[in-house]
Amino acid sequence: MAKANQNYLKLPGSYLFSMIGKKIGEYQQQHPDADIIRLGIGDVTQPIAPAVIRALHEAVDEMGSPDTFRGYAPDLGYEFLRSVISRKDYRERGCDISAEEIFISDGAKCDCGNIQEIFDMENRIAVCDPVYPVYVDSNVMAGRTGAYDSEAGRFCDVIYMPCTEQNGFVPELPDQIPDLIYLCFPNNPTGAVMGKGMLQEWVDYARLHGSVILYDAAYEAYISDGEIPHSIYECEGARECAIEFRSFSKTAGFTGLRLGFTVVPKELKADGIALWPLWARRHGTKYNGAPYIIQRAGEAVYSDEGRRQVMGQVAYYMENARIIYEGLKEAGYTVSGGVNAPYIWLKTPGGMKSWEFFDALLERANVVGTPGSGFGPHGEHYFRLTAFGDRERTMEAVERIRRM
Amino acid sequence: MAKANQNYLKLPGSYLFSMIGKKIGEYQQQHPDADIIRLGIGDVTQPIAPAVIRALHEAVDEMGSPDTFRGYAPDLGYEFLRSVISRKDYRERGCDISAEEIFISDGAKCDCGNIQEIFDMENRIAVCDPVYPVYVDSNVMAGRTGAYDSEAGRFCDVIYMPCTEQNGFVPELPDQIPDLIYLCFPNNPTGAVMGKGMLQEWVDYARLHGSVILYDAAYEAYISDGEIPHSIYECEGARECAIEFRSFSKTAGFTGLRLGFTVVPKELKADGIALWPLWARRHGTKYNGAPYIIQRAGEAVYSDEGRRQVMGQVAYYMENARIIYEGLKEAGYTVSGGVNAPYIWLKTPGGMKSWEFFDALLERANVVGTPGSGFGPHGEHYFRLTAFGDRERTMEAVERIRRM
Repeated sequence: MAKANQNYLKLPGSYLFSMIGKKIGEYQQQHPDADIIRLGIGDVTQPIAPAVIRALHEAVDEMGSPDTFRGYAPDLGYEFLRSVISRKDYRERGCDISAEEIFISDGAKCDCGNIQEIFDMENRIAVCDPVYPVYVDSNVMAGRTGAYDSEAGRFCDVIYMPCTEQNGFVPELPDQIPDLIYLCFPNNPTGAVMGKGMLQEWVDYARLHGSVILYDAAYEAYISDGEIPHSIYECEGARECAIEFRSFSKTAGFTGLRLGFTVVPKELKADGIALWPLWARRHGTKYNGAPYIIQRAGEAVYSDEGRRQVMGQVAYYMENARIIYEGLKEAGYTVSGGVNAPYIWLKTPGGMKSWEFFDALLERANVVGTPGSGFGPHGEHYFRLTAFGDRERTMEAVERIRRM
Repeated sequence: MAKANQNYLKLPGSYLFSMIGKKIGEYQQQHPDADIIRLGIGDVTQPIAPAVIRALHEAVDEMGSPDTFRGYAPDLGYEFLRSVISRKDYRERGCDISAEEIFISDGAKCDCGNIQEIFDMENRIAVCDPVYPVYVDSNVMAGRTGAYDSEAGRFCDVIYMPCTEQNGFVPELPDQIPDLIYLCFPNNPTGAVMGKGMLQEWVDYARLHGSVILYDAAYEAYISDGEIPHSIYECEGARECAIEFRSFSKTAGFTGLRLGFTVVPKELKADGIALWPLWARRHGTKYNGAPYIIQRAGEAVYSDEGRRQVMGQVAYYMENARIIYEGLKEAGYTVSGGVNAPYIWLKTPGGMKSWEFFDALLERANVVGTPGSGFGPHGEHYFRLTAFGDRERTMEAVERIRRM
């Protein structure tokens, strides 16, 4: 008799964004004329940059001709993409990361979800609270988190690291020592960043205890402050304790094209076992490479023209962030994030619960955001707005919130 | 202290195709002028069909315009693709499979590798011997197979079902009852097919014992015999016991574009737990959808023009298969497969070991194939040739083998 993986049954209720979609649908049905502005889900709205579009067309033509057709991609990614990433994202920033240590994939979400597979079931994980749900959920499904305590909104065997107004939404080093530490900076959902000194402390802590840091740098392109590290490998010793995830989704608007990569340094070991060969084996066995044409699109992001264009998109979104941040601040809200990240983290007014504020915003301003409590218990009384909207609609949304 | 997943260390040696690549490289280095013909790896060589290329260009243009840009795809795939698959691949064949039961992915290899995650660790798997390595390897990595017996070339807790000349390379129902049964027909590597009567016996067996059949139908487009089922859902009761994997890789030459899908019927349960929600949750948490432009390419395969063009490619490869099959048969070899599948399964002459024959073929004919023993102990003394080459080169390869 086949048996299902019962760990899946521990996952609480429906996914955050499904619940949001349901509430919007119901409201829209009752108010068919309502003009709803969505600043909830973190999806981009600007079209793919012209240099990238051109690269896509060229690669499509190659696939249509017998002389230039390409079949299976190399498991770990095309050399042309891995080497430009190594050079532009790492070596030019003083990080010693070789092309061979870069694994091309169909996105950081997949890699963040899959990475736990190369670790033993006995590892104890630590995550920020609030947190991007994939880190915990993928470990729940694997059976690494213990039972769900629905009252606390937490899994018994996970170490949660509160990110609060008091600590500037940057977690403190935990007392209980975790084996695997998920960190995401610039942070989703709070928009907080971690300075180099603090990140070095985490690296030192991980090396001292033999922990591995799983560093999600999906939003590094949004860093405006020159002192904030873009990569964990800017810290000394990180090659011995950290895996880094990067994405083209927010950097270059690839949410619908699907491209990302993961860095696993050759020195990195877990209790004496090198992790590079394990991740390579996982890639080779359970994955079959990102499409050739998408890898060419990724390469075009690093051309001078491509870089200029995607930096223009990032600047566009960051101007949205500024408009939201300043508009809400002037209206008397307590806001953070939005300076080195495309997310604005808003304290709900008058001690309102996150979902109460969601309902109020939807009903009174026809604006949709994401309730902070959906990211964890310490997200309660907070609310996330994203800068990925259209300019005019973003301005209109801020104006409506101010009038509330 | 972080601990690695030690199950990975049970995986024997290097991957079959890496070993082949190494041997070719060494030979080429010693004989720089040798003109090697590769009929080893199962990668296609014909360019993407014009109708599909056109759909790709159109979709790329959509991504470059603000009005038609698309961000995140729906987790389970775009409705336009799911519904055409449901209609053309299933309903038109009399199989009751709805669009909602189809999960779009980046390929059948990924899905075949990932599917085991929704099952409990205690399930006992059964595989054919010889077999496509991904089924076993993904279970080894998850820890479901026990230790490796290097003398037998087998994992202790796996049920191996011999596919031999005696049983026409179609496995018999096993005495030990498996929980999960991997079947692949038309078969890789043997090219064998399973008739509807026999497949119905497997479905009945699975229903009787509460087993789940994981049916890999990646090569269904190569079936020429009208009596051979294209889908397991042509059998009565299969909705209650089977998951089916499909691929665009061999059907339409998408090995470099990456597109496939998996069918999980709503009725399907494992010990009372419905599997559709589990696979949907896995998709939503550890995956982020196939690229929009690739899904549009997939849709174009089902247009009248696209269908005609990809059927032309399949016919081209099947003519290669006929040339290899008949050429080797006339030369006195014992051959099978090649009629309803793009693989020719060849008995090595004079009781040669598979790798001995590989070396002889490489050295004396400069032709590369795949040693049968790489697919399992019962593949020893066999050899796989693929029909995915260029016509002229395929004819040349056969001629060289005949002259050996």
